Amino acid sequence: MNIEPAGEKKSTDPLPNSSRVYVGGTLHPSVRVPMREIALSPTKTFSGELEANEPVRVYDTSGPWGDPSFEGDVDSGLPALRREWILNRNDVAEYDGREIKPQDNGYLSTSHAQIASEKRGGLSALTSPENAKRRPLKATGHPVTQLWYARQGIITPEMEFIAIRENLRAARLADYTNDIVRSDLDKQHSGSAQQQSDYTPSVFRRFPQRIPKEITPEFVRGEVAAGRAIIPANINHPELEPMIIGRNFLVKINANIGNSAVASSIEEEVEKMRWATKWGADTVMDLSTGKNIHATREWILRNSPVPIGTVPIYQALEKVSGKAEDLTWEIFRDTLIEQAEQGVDYFTIHAGVLLRFVPMTASRMTGIVSRGGSIMAKWCLSHHKENFLYTHWDDICDIMAAYDVSFSIGDGLRPGSIADANDKAQFGELEVQGELTARAWAKGVQVMNEGPGHVPMHMIEENMAKQLEWCHEAPFYTLGPLTTDIAPGYDHITSGIGAAMIGWYGCAMLCYVTPKEHLGLPNKQDVKEGVITYKLAAHAADLAKGHPGAQYRDNALSKARFEFRWEDQFNLGLDPERAREFHDETLPQEGAKSAHFCSMCGPHFCSMKITEDVRKYAAEQAISEEEALAKGMSEKSKEFAENGRELYQKAFDSV
Amino acid sequence: MNIEPAGEKKSTDPLPNSSRVYVGGTLHPSVRVPMREIALSPTKTFSGELEANEPVRVYDTSGPWGDPSFEGDVDSGLPALRREWILNRNDVAEYDGREIKPQDNGYLSTSHAQIASEKRGGLSALTSPENAKRRPLKATGHPVTQLWYARQGIITPEMEFIAIRENLRAARLADYTNDIVRSDLDKQHSGSAQQQSDYTPSVFRRFPQRIPKEITPEFVRGEVAAGRAIIPANINHPELEPMIIGRNFLVKINANIGNSAVASSIEEEVEKMRWATKWGADTVMDLSTGKNIHATREWILRNSPVPIGTVPIYQALEKVSGKAEDLTWEIFRDTLIEQAEQGVDYFTIHAGVLLRFVPMTASRMTGIVSRGGSIMAKWCLSHHKENFLYTHWDDICDIMAAYDVSFSIGDGLRPGSIADANDKAQFGELEVQGELTARAWAKGVQVMNEGPGHVPMHMIEENMAKQLEWCHEAPFYTLGPLTTDIAPGYDHITSGIGAAMIGWYGCAMLCYVTPKEHLGLPNKQDVKEGVITYKLAAHAADLAKGHPGAQYRDNALSKARFEFRWEDQFNLGLDPERAREFHDETLPQEGAKSAHFCSMCGPHFCSMKITEDVRKYAAEQAISEEEALAKGMSEKSKEFAENGRELYQKAFDSV
Repeated sequence: MNIEPAGEKKSTDPLPNSSRVYVGGTLHPSVRVPMREIALSPTKTFSGELEANEPVRVYDTSGPWGDPSFEGDVDSGLPALRREWILNRNDVAEYDGREIKPQDNGYLSTSHAQIASEKRGGLSALTSPENAKRRPLKATGHPVTQLWYARQGIITPEMEFIAIRENLRAARLADYTNDIVRSDLDKQHSGSAQQQSDYTPSVFRRFPQRIPKEITPEFVRGEVAAGRAIIPANINHPELEPMIIGRNFLVKINANIGNSAVASSIEEEVEKMRWATKWGADTVMDLSTGKNIHATREWILRNSPVPIGTVPIYQALEKVSGKAEDLTWEIFRDTLIEQAEQGVDYFTIHAGVLLRFVPMTASRMTGIVSRGGSIMAKWCLSHHKENFLYTHWDDICDIMAAYDVSFSIGDGLRPGSIADANDKAQFGELEVQGELTARAWAKGVQVMNEGPGHVPMHMIEENMAKQLEWCHEAPFYTLGPLTTDIAPGYDHITSGIGAAMIGWYGCAMLCYVTPKEHLGLPNKQDVKEGVITYKLAAHAADLAKGHPGAQYRDNALSKARFEFRWEDQFNLGLDPERAREFHDETLPQEGAKSAHFCSMCGPHFCSMKITEDVRKYAAEQAISEEEALAKGMSEKSKEFAENGRELYQKAFDSV
Repeated sequence: MNIEPAGEKKSTDPLPNSSRVYVGGTLHPSVRVPMREIALSPTKTFSGELEANEPVRVYDTSGPWGDPSFEGDVDSGLPALRREWILNRNDVAEYDGREIKPQDNGYLSTSHAQIASEKRGGLSALTSPENAKRRPLKATGHPVTQLWYARQGIITPEMEFIAIRENLRAARLADYTNDIVRSDLDKQHSGSAQQQSDYTPSVFRRFPQRIPKEITPEFVRGEVAAGRAIIPANINHPELEPMIIGRNFLVKINANIGNSAVASSIEEEVEKMRWATKWGADTVMDLSTGKNIHATREWILRNSPVPIGTVPIYQALEKVSGKAEDLTWEIFRDTLIEQAEQGVDYFTIHAGVLLRFVPMTASRMTGIVSRGGSIMAKWCLSHHKENFLYTHWDDICDIMAAYDVSFSIGDGLRPGSIADANDKAQFGELEVQGELTARAWAKGVQVMNEGPGHVPMHMIEENMAKQLEWCHEAPFYTLGPLTTDIAPGYDHITSGIGAAMIGWYGCAMLCYVTPKEHLGLPNKQDVKEGVITYKLAAHAADLAKGHPGAQYRDNALSKARFEFRWEDQFNLGLDPERAREFHDETLPQEGAKSAHFCSMCGPHFCSMKITEDVRKYAAEQAISEEEALAKGMSEKSKEFAENGRELYQKAFDSV
């Protein structure tokens, strides 16, 4: 089914020179971890010989949509990868789910829904009577959370899947034992997780990162059991490919999508989800408001290979026609169950917005900018009562535990401007987030904490340190933060700076910001721009932390760049299309892509070419000088030969 | 003269709602510092009244081109603003300059030059016989550098100009003494320069930033005298508006332009310079190679209100037809004098690339990526001699001192990949840069040091700390650094992250990187993208350092955002055009720009709107609770009233 305007790039178009490979599990043979493998061209040596370059495998979030052999479509949804794993645990049962009501879709009338369905060209299967009868799963006894299993010492298939996925390069080595040797490309600087130097920020002294040389399934289990990482994986979202969020793993990114009252449609949102995961979104939040919320979410969940997060209060607000003061625990509870049955993997819940914090925001430059935060603030003030999400926390935990929905405890009082960063309201709520974290853990529920927002660079570390301290090292999940307010239209960058920094300091997941932030709704191009910006920020953080194998892709790309393997340089990048397009603007000829010079400097003046000559010369020189030395030549020669030996001395801290 | 394709944006198009203002000097009445003043619309209060918002003044690098009343054109060049200041010092004399030779323009033939000139549509005045007779100035006795004057205790007009310019907000307050009071907008977080917290990087403990509450002319003089800051201002570039580079001042950015053998033309390069300064470039480097170098530089200099930097070895290499081994001290010296007479303000000179370091680069992932570095490396190896720039350092200093050309000591061995960061070759050269710095200071010459390049985040602080230590706190000027290599097409962002961080740590100037880095030649759009990205990175660093008044613009923009003053939000941003365009994509109607809701959430669901209600409610509540308290009401009321009082408690560290 084609839901794309003609000529536009599709989310299922394969990336160049790439193929899909799967790495199998050992503990759990049904585990098959998808990776994208990028084939490279050979290196031409000085002597004209060709030396093969190993293909590079990269973490792949695109799910079956990124597998050219997958024949499904959005109309029928993705296969239920995890269904057997879930059922084999013998701790859940199917039941008749809650009935879908008109208010779930924002009081969308049946006839309106019919028209909308026809306009969509018949996206019928997922809303057909059969699907409507889809029976959700629910725990029959103990919590069915990955946290609960981890605490019992159980390594689930999800955990093994994640170990292989996180351990990318080591897995590749293991997979190819016969013909791959550890090369220069495997060299990597020690990161903050391996080394504490004079230049290490204080946050690491108090809360060191602990990243082993290899990510094992047992390491995954241990981190989940300790609450330092979560695996968002609702038992009713079996289509999901497991991933982990924790500071001793790869830094993850989230992309927000969602229709709003103003624009957008279901098809666009499903396509935005696939598009975001094509470019690397690790989770997607559906922030839909307005009409058709339930149906939109159903379509997104059934087609999403990544965890889906929501902010249930948005839908609850629709059920009371937008009047915050009319919200009740019963309506919210009903919404939680509705979404848990659909398969939402994590809920943002703004239970830390306490009545006593609300007036603290009145003197702020930008008040309360979180939607959830302002809804709850309004409710608290209207009733002059404590936030019902706080008073019903234990009840909420019980629901979450029965479906393995993870908490993303909202930061409803996050600063909306540099001026408001790190103030009393924000830190007051953060302390409460810590209390709520401990209570959720007691109920066996997985937890991460949301964070700001807008923070100048020098105040970011304090945010991370306080979150780790107050929230007992639960994973942190921040929006940016933006490091200045003066660049509307470029807030993917103002926030990408803060995101990379806080990722290095220990933030586990970064919520992307698109160039349209503060200005309008992101289109597909904006979504891609936001995702790529956050991928590079997260990767910069992985390098700084020293995630094992993270530098491999940088090394492979740098080698390709140095050897003028243009195509390989493009293909190893996060956005091969743009790299090629930019190159072709200057040197469009096909031959220029294999030329031994770079388009910046032209054929007769290229520093890389000169360096090739220097290297060749130095190598020859080193040999002839060694010979000269052997023959007892001049002091001058001796001196040079000593330097020449450094040729082979490696500049890296660690291997 | 129109040198723009029809329909394209021009560098002289005014920015919206902006006017040019000048602030006069006190010590030197001839000083007139240009600023851009952005007019704002009034705030609508809850009661429907209008409250005026003060206009916001911003640092303006566009020179006379940004003054709508300026009637000059590129054909005749800018007025010689500093000529009188220079002559009044009575320490320079005009003389017959070096004669222009064919090799200065890369052996461009006279007939070729004629054709090129005609093709340009008659850009004649600057190459007319009169102009060719333009007689350069040169020192008659002592060094004529700002460093020399500073050491004598002299506050030059340049220094007063800079104090006013850097002291933007304070100057505005001084200028409007009668009708402006210090407002909430003047509040600012303490920066690293004012406060050392638990979360302060170690670099500040060893090398604290010292930024006073007000930047005085005497402070400028003191920083220059200490070598911690430079004022690049060749006596033969009187068109220049003085600016300062030092870590206790605003972080500056440089934009590279320059034709290459492959593409471009003089007109394009002049327009790129004006375009770059329109968007905020503080200096511009002309990296031209190939034909027409001398003429291109002449056009750029005569039209540039910002300091121009060059890498003289590029032109010297053209004079020997691209053969590095044919370079000689005499040819280089001739080139230095040629460019000093034209008015180049700073020279990148790769004198730290010593013979003994060259073989250290052979085992690197990407060898030597600096053009200047690879040229000198090739020369050193070819002759098996020490770098002639190093052996002739004192001679070079003497030339620089006679024209006040500042050194930008090149980092020819900077890493070209993450893999090569912070290696022996790089740090070996950095130590030599320190030695050269001290020797230049002894000759009275101003110095900054160039730095990398490609550095993972956790190794950036070490770069800054070593530079400060080894180079005696001379200003650092880095290219990025890029924090990962995996995002070709987005290297303005991979490097913007590193740039913001190193700017915070103390880097004085950031050399921009455009999205085309590693891929092709930047066009005008790329130049703008690079400049804006670096402006926001530099500003993020200014906020983190705590430059006095830096947060004013963030505050004004945040206030406009919160109050739905859309036009003001656009106009206060670094790129009003893009902000407006992005907004209009979602809500194109003119009315939407004054609507009291934001385009992201729609009219019925907006957190800012809810916050407005909360604020109003909280204010009313606080009053009624106070009344209730006065009447001896319930404990519950008392408790709320106490929180209500926090309404007016300020969340800021400092004012």
